[in-house]
Amino acid sequence: MAHEFDSHIQVAHAGDGRYDADLAPGWVVGGGVNGGYLLAVIGNALRASLPGKPDPIAVSAYYLSASVPGPATVSVDVRRDGGSIATAAADLRQGDDARITALATYGDLGRLGDDVATTAEEPHLPPPGECVPNTMAPPEVLAAAPLLDRFDMRFHPDHVGWAVGKPSGRGVLSAWFRLADGREPDPISLLMVVDALPPVTFDLGMPGWAPTLELTAHLRAKPAPGWLKVRHATRNMAGGMFEEYCEVWDSAGRLCAQSRQLARQPRPVGSSVE
Amino acid sequence: MAHEFDSHIQVAHAGDGRYDADLAPGWVVGGGVNGGYLLAVIGNALRASLPGKPDPIAVSAYYLSASVPGPATVSVDVRRDGGSIATAAADLRQGDDARITALATYGDLGRLGDDVATTAEEPHLPPPGECVPNTMAPPEVLAAAPLLDRFDMRFHPDHVGWAVGKPSGRGVLSAWFRLADGREPDPISLLMVVDALPPVTFDLGMPGWAPTLELTAHLRAKPAPGWLKVRHATRNMAGGMFEEYCEVWDSAGRLCAQSRQLARQPRPVGSSVE
Repeated sequence: MAHEFDSHIQVAHAGDGRYDADLAPGWVVGGGVNGGYLLAVIGNALRASLPGKPDPIAVSAYYLSASVPGPATVSVDVRRDGGSIATAAADLRQGDDARITALATYGDLGRLGDDVATTAEEPHLPPPGECVPNTMAPPEVLAAAPLLDRFDMRFHPDHVGWAVGKPSGRGVLSAWFRLADGREPDPISLLMVVDALPPVTFDLGMPGWAPTLELTAHLRAKPAPGWLKVRHATRNMAGGMFEEYCEVWDSAGRLCAQSRQLARQPRPVGSSVE
Repeated sequence: MAHEFDSHIQVAHAGDGRYDADLAPGWVVGGGVNGGYLLAVIGNALRASLPGKPDPIAVSAYYLSASVPGPATVSVDVRRDGGSIATAAADLRQGDDARITALATYGDLGRLGDDVATTAEEPHLPPPGECVPNTMAPPEVLAAAPLLDRFDMRFHPDHVGWAVGKPSGRGVLSAWFRLADGREPDPISLLMVVDALPPVTFDLGMPGWAPTLELTAHLRAKPAPGWLKVRHATRNMAGGMFEEYCEVWDSAGRLCAQSRQLARQPRPVGSSVE
């Protein structure tokens, strides 16, 4: 069965390492298209251009300007392809506008060793049925974020004080996550998942869109089917910026993806990009 | 007074966004030239090519092959320069060999707001005189790491069990840090500092060189003069790879730099690069 997500991240090879994409309007949030979705589109073009290396292992994206729904082009330039991994640069453009410039290393996550000595602890979440669904987000958030319709998210009840005007101030958000269309997670969709939850600044009493300057994701394992657990945290708000960590755990209790981004502190919902 | 570090990271503009550098032999460690030093060389070329934006804010480097002492070229391609920040790509090559490909956003750290709401806690370290100096590193480490002569490092006594065959197994290393030549820290030298300590895997009973695949540094403040505190940690060893976090705190108690890298688990000291 074809899933909405796969059609939204579809790319068509136009020759010379160039891939055409069509950014779907359903991923708009705040002043632009969701950065995680854009990363999955870029990730799909990279996968298409690196045969035998299907999985992102590390991806770094620098966001240059806000994307809009509609046609886009991803240009891939392979920098090194040898042994078990390959590294490439990728640029997403819309017309003459540079939107994102990225670097990525790809390989085959299925061929990594199966040693795991993780000291990170799986986030505790009450069962999905006892968590707060994204459909209960404040009306102004739902209006500014059509992308919430793509998701089935169930927030930890302790981390949604912001929804009722009582943020915890700890700088932590966690939720169960799956795509609303039923598509199971894979390493490409995880590129979207690491930037899908509201910014952790919601939990610090700063609602609104937080423009990402840079985001790097590490993919550490293929996710098992089923619900994902996603946890956002920040440790350093300073100089108008904050860093946001994201961990994604799969239904088998494996830490599949880790990301860190540097973002500007939120502006009021609906404000324009610099 | 001219410092050794400044002469080692010096670049000469050769036209067309190309900068010539000479990688100093004093930065060799294990099978190549230290990745942090290389990042500072690249950072210096980026600074030279982005007038009015002297400071790295975010830098992501993908390490393609091990560098050797001697001539190198850094090519800078500005992707966007508008408003208060600029983003550029930079490639370090030696002859026909691609060594590092990087992306960076530069700006002026002195022009950021002075708001600080950091929940990260400054690492506790006994006074430098009560810590373990890098000159006491095991002989095989000193032999494989001439770069240790560049540093005055004083390790937390609880984090040097590895030096006497008793690693703690917690995956944490911390130390006081300054350059042996007396040069005070600045945002460019911090690009080196985030990859200067031994890999955190030493504390997990895995001595040896851990080749970096990707490293992203966020520069959050200009460092005050004096000793720096550097802390490395890891949370996820799996599939032959681990991630390493680094925090750098200055003498004023400010969190100046945060980095995260993905590296391969160590191979025995002296083994060759893949």
